[in-house]
Amino acid sequence: MPDEQHMKAALQAYLDGFAAKDADAVVALFAENAVVEDPVGSEPIRGRAALAKFYGRAVQMVSQLRLAAPIRGSHGNAAAMAFDVEMLIDGREAKVQTIDVMEFDADGKIASMRAYWGPSNASGFA
Amino acid sequence: MPDEQHMKAALQAYLDGFAAKDADAVVALFAENAVVEDPVGSEPIRGRAALAKFYGRAVQMVSQLRLAAPIRGSHGNAAAMAFDVEMLIDGREAKVQTIDVMEFDADGKIASMRAYWGPSNASGFA
Repeated sequence: MPDEQHMKAALQAYLDGFAAKDADAVVALFAENAVVEDPVGSEPIRGRAALAKFYGRAVQMVSQLRLAAPIRGSHGNAAAMAFDVEMLIDGREAKVQTIDVMEFDADGKIASMRAYWGPSNASGFA
Repeated sequence: MPDEQHMKAALQAYLDGFAAKDADAVVALFAENAVVEDPVGSEPIRGRAALAKFYGRAVQMVSQLRLAAPIRGSHGNAAAMAFDVEMLIDGREAKVQTIDVMEFDADGKIASMRAYWGPSNASGFA
């Protein structure tokens, strides 16, 4: 099982990858067959090729990921963080308040990410 | 599927139940066969009778649950919140930074709660 510090560092690296608009660095945190459900309730994105496309677009669209509280670890194989996604969409500012939960595999890679945000957590969209 | 406002209201009621030290009100939010894993990685607590015991102790021990960021809904059957648990243990102040994820059943009751916090998120313990 990956240790807590490794998992928390991976979540920080996820934020840092967005800050650097480095989609490759973000995708490299994930396992080959990782699954991303963003938001929870939507069709999951499966596998690194699909994730590369998703994060390639995401890092361009996002102005900033702003951590809302310290990153949480766990006593298991998961870590979580609450943050705000600040975006520019057609020149307009938009924001999503999310909590992302990441589960890790035995190699310390992210096996799944689930993003908890609903319609009421999104603002500034057309 | 329960709607987002219902789920967010249930999470707020969870906080309010602690503020009132009303374990019955907290337990009433859960389904009969609900499962609580607090923290993630520990042995789950199963069913309302066991939850009544768990929350009966918890509401006495907790001074305050302090929400760290607005409650998140989802586009599915889940909601999540980041908060700090402030406790008094043998007269000493202790704190746990957690993110709790709740999944709801079709009746709008909490079917599962998972609390993401690790050793590094707990302070003030002996």
